[in-house]
Amino acid sequence: MTSPLRLGIAGLGTVGAGVVKIIRAEAELLAARAGRPVTISAVSARSRDKDRGVPLKDYAWEDDPVALAKRDDVDVFVELMGGSDGPAKAATEAALAAGKDVVTANKAMLAIHGQALAEQAEAADRVVRFEAAVAGGIPVVKSLTEGLAGNNMTRVMGVMNGTCNYILTRMENAGLPYAEVFEEANKLGYLEADPTLDVGGIDAGHKLALLASIAFGTKVNFGAMQLEGIERISIDDITRAGDMGYKVKLLGVAQMTGRGLEQRMSPCLVPATSALGQLENATNMVVLEGDQVGQIVLRGAGAGEGPTASAVMSDVMDIARGIRVSTFGRPADTLVEAQAANELQPAAYYLRMELQDKPGALAKIATLLGEHGISIDRMRQYNHEMSTAPVLIVTHKTTKDALTVALDGFSATGVVATPPVAIRIEEV
Amino acid sequence: MTSPLRLGIAGLGTVGAGVVKIIRAEAELLAARAGRPVTISAVSARSRDKDRGVPLKDYAWEDDPVALAKRDDVDVFVELMGGSDGPAKAATEAALAAGKDVVTANKAMLAIHGQALAEQAEAADRVVRFEAAVAGGIPVVKSLTEGLAGNNMTRVMGVMNGTCNYILTRMENAGLPYAEVFEEANKLGYLEADPTLDVGGIDAGHKLALLASIAFGTKVNFGAMQLEGIERISIDDITRAGDMGYKVKLLGVAQMTGRGLEQRMSPCLVPATSALGQLENATNMVVLEGDQVGQIVLRGAGAGEGPTASAVMSDVMDIARGIRVSTFGRPADTLVEAQAANELQPAAYYLRMELQDKPGALAKIATLLGEHGISIDRMRQYNHEMSTAPVLIVTHKTTKDALTVALDGFSATGVVATPPVAIRIEEV
Repeated sequence: MTSPLRLGIAGLGTVGAGVVKIIRAEAELLAARAGRPVTISAVSARSRDKDRGVPLKDYAWEDDPVALAKRDDVDVFVELMGGSDGPAKAATEAALAAGKDVVTANKAMLAIHGQALAEQAEAADRVVRFEAAVAGGIPVVKSLTEGLAGNNMTRVMGVMNGTCNYILTRMENAGLPYAEVFEEANKLGYLEADPTLDVGGIDAGHKLALLASIAFGTKVNFGAMQLEGIERISIDDITRAGDMGYKVKLLGVAQMTGRGLEQRMSPCLVPATSALGQLENATNMVVLEGDQVGQIVLRGAGAGEGPTASAVMSDVMDIARGIRVSTFGRPADTLVEAQAANELQPAAYYLRMELQDKPGALAKIATLLGEHGISIDRMRQYNHEMSTAPVLIVTHKTTKDALTVALDGFSATGVVATPPVAIRIEEV
Repeated sequence: MTSPLRLGIAGLGTVGAGVVKIIRAEAELLAARAGRPVTISAVSARSRDKDRGVPLKDYAWEDDPVALAKRDDVDVFVELMGGSDGPAKAATEAALAAGKDVVTANKAMLAIHGQALAEQAEAADRVVRFEAAVAGGIPVVKSLTEGLAGNNMTRVMGVMNGTCNYILTRMENAGLPYAEVFEEANKLGYLEADPTLDVGGIDAGHKLALLASIAFGTKVNFGAMQLEGIERISIDDITRAGDMGYKVKLLGVAQMTGRGLEQRMSPCLVPATSALGQLENATNMVVLEGDQVGQIVLRGAGAGEGPTASAVMSDVMDIARGIRVSTFGRPADTLVEAQAANELQPAAYYLRMELQDKPGALAKIATLLGEHGISIDRMRQYNHEMSTAPVLIVTHKTTKDALTVALDGFSATGVVATPPVAIRIEEV
């Protein structure tokens, strides 16, 4: 096949403009690799007049992305508008209905409507590809779907929101509290218009839900994700955890357990010497674990014009080369409902508390934990000048349920000055 | 397409047996993902009677891999025999001639005959896939060929021989000399029958040559690789380099420069805090750098039954799914001859020497370096009890040629007790 692959690009923000630039600058390279030219027929965005640093006069303009998606001279609809519903979804559905393949960077849309779109695509014998939706330039969707297709996946983990990792490493390196670094990040333009998408773990949770679907053959189910953001991480926890050899990361973990599919995006401690622990600033990392391959670690830029456009082009080039893979790695009608795990896998936990400086305080806590079957791996009490003493405890593995009950009992001991902080320690 | 994809597997060592195990154990999973069953029609190996821990009675047996490759009930010839020539090559050629696709783990064969095989495959409209030939379970061929297809690749690097990295990290952690750790590795069965393949950098060089071809669109040219093994790395260098913040790695680097394609596999120093510097034991790491994506780092097991079989299955599953990509990422007849760079990119170098303990010795060396345009970044002289003093120098960036000339002049200064050791410092 040597006829050009013709794109219609909806959304000309940073990523969309980046894609246009690559296709203009690398026409020869792309054609050599794909065996056919990759061209742009038409584009669409909110404002036609905005200067995007790339000439658009060679392409037809559509105000309406749905009209773009249906054009006869478009083979692939490239959706870079964002938003789980509204124009992005309408145009994606229109594109599939009109027999176009779809490439999208829209994690929110797929985390919510992925199953329906995958079914629509399959019914129309079209593909929906979304490498750019997860971890920017890292080829993680391809690695998981194709590169590890011979594995029973056992666990998928990732630090997949660069802004959160930036905030956490900046807090650590500068010794600044969360609120201050949040403001810095906001001023630098690192945060989404609704910052909860970032710091609440929602954006990263969307990404994890997509990977979980591929890994475990389940219908994408963002609603079943256990979500906890980084808003309550204190500089004290970052510092104290560091003393114990850990780093705090907003870590996503998906694994199939005897109790069902566990999906959580939450602050976790990981060993400071681990690859995840050493991940600094806005860089992303995904860890893929399979029964055959063991552990594969992928690291790279999770956002930005070049990396995200690179991921979009990966999907475009696949389609140009005739590579067609089901949206979530197997036919949509064979994906099964994910039974959500009703209890997390046991884990060690880090506990930080302020204890009254009176005899037997520590013993009371240790006794209480023991009564709930929770044993102590390491404990550290810090110097203090006030009437309370900072105490850190690293437990052996316990269930979250047992821990919750134990922590609920802390206040009744009369020796705990403030509610304890508990952070899961993930084995990586 | 729902007809089974039927394999003929030649070579039933660890990897071959691993592939058979996966196909037997995961028939349902593979069929769900591929949309069709993956089956084995026939197998071939040197000895029919050996117990390989997996039943073979369901499959036809061929003593001759060429006969296996031509069988009517084989769609894909899976070549896991090894060896650059001989039966592996004969059977691969026979398979392509008979219209079969080929999956191979044979880096030596492809590094030498890759261009010819790619051309034969293309003429027959068949594919040759080799994910398992490079860095074991890490999906690096796929990531580079497909995942980063929108990038002009700028550099490809990797630690891709687990045995060498095991030897180097074992030397460091145990403080043992090379010869002793080499013997250990030999006893543990970590070395190839011809250990030069490992410690001489040849095996890793084969892998790098394959990646370079994909990255830069050049005909694979292992002959142009600058090869240096780890045999002359001393424990002193590992220790001293460690003092200066570096680790010694057998590092492959391929980059397109203004002077042509630079391909080298040689001991290099990398910062101890870098991802490459932190790579321990037999683990592999590949670093892919593109103009759009920036730096992507991939880490995982580079050898072993599970990881290598996982990579073989990645290629098998691609073929089952109808994914067909040119051997080196573009049509074989469009790959260009690689003009080998006649000079390496400038770099900083680590120099270790023993200087006579007399006044002005260091000055003479510094002056000599200066005369060749080589400036000193850091210098360290160690305590000593003998008549010579260990001296380390880290230079600023210089050409290899200038350095070679300067080092040649060292002996004439009369202050250097032993020939200096020079190791390139790679910017990672």
